Amino acid sequence: MGADHARILHRDVPHADVVMVADVDRNRAQAVADGIPGCRVASDARALIDADEVDAVLVASSDATHVEYVLACLDLRKPVLCEKPLAPTAAECAQIVAAEDAVVGGGLPLVSVGFMRRFDPGYVELKGLVDDGALGVPVMVHSVGRGVSAPAGTDELTVTGSAIHDLDIVPWLLSSPVVEVSWHAARQSPEVADRRDPQLMLLRTANGALTTVDIFLNARYGYDTRCEVVGSMASASLTEPHRVIRDEGLGRGHGYGSDWRPRFAEAYRLQNRAWVESLVSGTVTPLATARDGLQAALVADAVIASMHADGGFVRVRADAGVAGP
Amino acid sequence: MGADHARILHRDVPHADVVMVADVDRNRAQAVADGIPGCRVASDARALIDADEVDAVLVASSDATHVEYVLACLDLRKPVLCEKPLAPTAAECAQIVAAEDAVVGGGLPLVSVGFMRRFDPGYVELKGLVDDGALGVPVMVHSVGRGVSAPAGTDELTVTGSAIHDLDIVPWLLSSPVVEVSWHAARQSPEVADRRDPQLMLLRTANGALTTVDIFLNARYGYDTRCEVVGSMASASLTEPHRVIRDEGLGRGHGYGSDWRPRFAEAYRLQNRAWVESLVSGTVTPLATARDGLQAALVADAVIASMHADGGFVRVRADAGVAGP
Amino acid sequence: MGADHARILHRDVPHADVVMVADVDRNRAQAVADGIPGCRVASDARALIDADEVDAVLVASSDATHVEYVLACLDLRKPVLCEKPLAPTAAECAQIVAAEDAVVGGGLPLVSVGFMRRFDPGYVELKGLVDDGALGVPVMVHSVGRGVSAPAGTDELTVTGSAIHDLDIVPWLLSSPVVEVSWHAARQSPEVADRRDPQLMLLRTANGALTTVDIFLNARYGYDTRCEVVGSMASASLTEPHRVIRDEGLGRGHGYGSDWRPRFAEAYRLQNRAWVESLVSGTVTPLATARDGLQAALVADAVIASMHADGGFVRVRADAGVAGP
Amino acid sequence: MGADHARILHRDVPHADVVMVADVDRNRAQAVADGIPGCRVASDARALIDADEVDAVLVASSDATHVEYVLACLDLRKPVLCEKPLAPTAAECAQIVAAEDAVVGGGLPLVSVGFMRRFDPGYVELKGLVDDGALGVPVMVHSVGRGVSAPAGTDELTVTGSAIHDLDIVPWLLSSPVVEVSWHAARQSPEVADRRDPQLMLLRTANGALTTVDIFLNARYGYDTRCEVVGSMASASLTEPHRVIRDEGLGRGHGYGSDWRPRFAEAYRLQNRAWVESLVSGTVTPLATARDGLQAALVADAVIASMHADGGFVRVRADAGVAGP
Repeated sequence: MGADHARILHRDVPHADVVMVADVDRNRAQAVADGIPGCRVASDARALIDADEVDAVLVASSDATHVEYVLACLDLRKPVLCEKPLAPTAAECAQIVAAEDAVVGGGLPLVSVGFMRRFDPGYVELKGLVDDGALGVPVMVHSVGRGVSAPAGTDELTVTGSAIHDLDIVPWLLSSPVVEVSWHAARQSPEVADRRDPQLMLLRTANGALTTVDIFLNARYGYDTRCEVVGSMASASLTEPHRVIRDEGLGRGHGYGSDWRPRFAEAYRLQNRAWVESLVSGTVTPLATARDGLQAALVADAVIASMHADGGFVRVRADAGVAGP
Repeated sequence: MGADHARILHRDVPHADVVMVADVDRNRAQAVADGIPGCRVASDARALIDADEVDAVLVASSDATHVEYVLACLDLRKPVLCEKPLAPTAAECAQIVAAEDAVVGGGLPLVSVGFMRRFDPGYVELKGLVDDGALGVPVMVHSVGRGVSAPAGTDELTVTGSAIHDLDIVPWLLSSPVVEVSWHAARQSPEVADRRDPQLMLLRTANGALTTVDIFLNARYGYDTRCEVVGSMASASLTEPHRVIRDEGLGRGHGYGSDWRPRFAEAYRLQNRAWVESLVSGTVTPLATARDGLQAALVADAVIASMHADGGFVRVRADAGVAGP
Repeated sequence: MGADHARILHRDVPHADVVMVADVDRNRAQAVADGIPGCRVASDARALIDADEVDAVLVASSDATHVEYVLACLDLRKPVLCEKPLAPTAAECAQIVAAEDAVVGGGLPLVSVGFMRRFDPGYVELKGLVDDGALGVPVMVHSVGRGVSAPAGTDELTVTGSAIHDLDIVPWLLSSPVVEVSWHAARQSPEVADRRDPQLMLLRTANGALTTVDIFLNARYGYDTRCEVVGSMASASLTEPHRVIRDEGLGRGHGYGSDWRPRFAEAYRLQNRAWVESLVSGTVTPLATARDGLQAALVADAVIASMHADGGFVRVRADAGVAGP
Repeated sequence: MGADHARILHRDVPHADVVMVADVDRNRAQAVADGIPGCRVASDARALIDADEVDAVLVASSDATHVEYVLACLDLRKPVLCEKPLAPTAAECAQIVAAEDAVVGGGLPLVSVGFMRRFDPGYVELKGLVDDGALGVPVMVHSVGRGVSAPAGTDELTVTGSAIHDLDIVPWLLSSPVVEVSWHAARQSPEVADRRDPQLMLLRTANGALTTVDIFLNARYGYDTRCEVVGSMASASLTEPHRVIRDEGLGRGHGYGSDWRPRFAEAYRLQNRAWVESLVSGTVTPLATARDGLQAALVADAVIASMHADGGFVRVRADAGVAGP
């Protein structure tokens, strides 16, 4: 995703220059830099963060490195947009929140989290309908995330690496935090050996709404993100975006992407544009904050606790280590 | 289609007994009769028409035989439902209209024509929207008829055998007769050797509305019937009926039938039920009449005249041989 | 629904004569009889069941009367099609099953239950895809039942009167019985005062598949039945049947019915036809049996037990009173 | 559209600075400039074109001014992106083509025309299917352009101002120029007093394909652009892009925009980005050229000739004044 972000910033986001890139695979970094006039390859990520000509940093490295890089940016008071998850554990997220609080005090936050769905035009339209009451009050949400296939991973990684998007977007849609959750295995797909797949989660938000989260990483048929908000007066659902429908071979239909990038290309562009615009104008970032990243991690922790228990409901912990949101 | 009609009457239409069937291929007739308790095979079609226990006749034989059989039914004053076209030429249709007028005078008509689209729930709903003004006034119609492949035939057969449905249904939808037409060849499909395919026709109805008729008998992709009525305030279109949508192989879609029978199964059932109900109750048939069959043939004649000329508009002839509709 | 059934049998199902109707409201019965030549009004339901000219009985009276009438039919060895639910409680269903076993021994069953969804062309197509392996193995099902508004009722009635359809159709689709369930309240719709609405249920079938059942009887927006079967290789969903799509008022869309009758009109017709055909031919009814009715009632019992407990999973009881299916 | 273009260039297109704007209404220009740091308002369009700090010009003024401004840019050898139409008449378009030829010789063209549909992801996908043979050979096209309402205008303006998009995009899709056309009035909408609306055009491209163009500027129901390419083996159609579908009020549907801007926002962004990228990299513009603008104007001339005659087919003139494309 790092190469994609560099390309988006270069081709699609004005008022930002991509001056330096870094990657553990230097050839990969060089390939990116070759496509961007004036872009250099840093010797390593820390050198990039430290470089004087770097005013802001976008972190799209492996999850385990997020904490170190984000903290390094905070040390230098450089704005940083960190890909989700902010960190693999809620404890580390809390560490970042605390560090940011110490650095910025009451000033502009420096850390943004790449929950790009918040900028997807479909989710934005859904939230608009919720916010203006067009659906009545929201009573249920059905959130579905399916992929073609996933690299090997654990049951827990499904939650922290994939469902984390749903755990962030549902409370954002409803403007109400998740307060309790439960986790349930569906019938195991015989196509999948490494982890339980699909998985079903129930989320209860503070407003009482009940959400089902259906995650199936090896669904084979396509990359498919669905979300329905059921209101007391009306319902609204994301549609699979497509521009062309084909009639062929005794059928009528349209295609799915094979991964998330075409589906969320516009969301990434709008997110990164919003980030740059907030930096240029010196205003509060409209992206997810470190606290949002922490909150999603706390919900993920509760889901995993339910997974490790009997599937009963588990309360989401309010983190004692940092002030409440 | 004869076997289908016998099955529909037996399984789906109450208050009618299928007592006799005939077919030039006696084995085929026998196969149909075997599926219907009490049904006998006639030695030939005339024997069936003449049989005392036969109260009404459904003609689904080859087009060229329609006139003879319908006239034979009229001679015996037996109600007859004749598959479209009523006859291959307008002149023969006029002969039937005249014969029926002579037989029934001002009484109940005996001849019905199998323009089953008039009973398709989609077309019926479309006509309801037109009739109640929900679309404003209708200004344009787009009528599309596509099939997977067609047996060999002439350019003219496309008009008299296939487009004839559109030539009947559009004026029925608009309650306004077709007054002039033009015919145009599209680019020839390289898949088709026997006749020009696809073909495009323009129809002008008396109310001024302009209709495009797109007929492509060898469209390969599926059997597909479309119709949009564009009104001055709103538009309405048939949808391809389907009950299930499938997600598979990086796509989302639904199927087409390979011919017209699944698409119009409900229309045939409702048409045949309406026919039997009118016979049982002794009321006027709500099906297309002989005059409707003649009128469609006159429009087809004009389309073929345009085909044989330069594609300019040709007026539809009012038939002098019979009283006006 | 009784009037609808009489009309369906008279107009849409051959080889059956509707000779007698009964209703607690005699005027209503008379109105139905007036539309059917030769149909008489019985003095009461028992008189109808007892009448010599009545060969088979369709029970569409209030739920509480089902047991009495079905047992009366069994006494006379008359085939009976009983609207769902077979009886309000599993115990009563078991009583019917036992009575039927006693009457017919190893012979043809006499009792059919009106789970008409089994004849809906959409569900039939879905089941075909499951059965032929087109989806891989089924791993999850999402079943949704929503209505515009419901008369007052209890939380439990939502389960026994409405969700009962889902509790029957899901194991039928998967050819696997429901073995455990849980029940969850969603956020209460402020539009609804009488009972908890919407409700969410989870079903685990013996094959391991996990099903969500979302029931919202006062969803306001339309009568809407959805079902998705998620397989290990592909997914398939019911579509809302519609024949026409309208473009008007800055929108494009199609309509919902305001209740279940238009949505399942074809299912009722095909169910009732199948029932009559099995009676005429003396073959086993393809409709749901008394044992299916009992099984759905046992699942409903478990759902209600979860509702009355803490929402944890509850095993579905195997009924000791009758032999296993 | 000028304000939109300025905003797009400022917010969505990197590597371009909007340094100056002009408008006959100076207040309107000032409002645009106020939203763009460093942007000045020119005293008039010619002053803007002449300004040293202006390297390239985007012309979105009234149609009648296009020729003057484009020629002024050519005089100064400044690249210019001119909104469609390039000029109101084919003769003026030819004048621009000749002027550009004189200025650039065999060098990079300076004039681009804002036929933004060529950058719409839907049309691009359609063209990809045509080009790679996925549809077989294209045999028919149905192109539909409808709007909610239009300001007063003449019959001819419908062709030169609106249908011009279809006259450009169809030959672009098919890689085959339009060689003959005909024009037909549909039934006049009683909502429209100023001009004939809707109008229907037939286009024959050099490859033999036949296209229908249905233009209805006052269709009331929404801004709706449709295009189906029918091939010998398959068909493909644009879909109305939408992100959310709503269930409410006994219906299910999605919205239309009230004008073209939301529908083609992405096309404008991608077009303008492509223009800037070609300027920055010194490569040939991938936008429509002056010759494309001329070609569309010649087709429009032929359509209007058919309108003024009897609706018969009219050959598209090859313009003698400039070398062939």
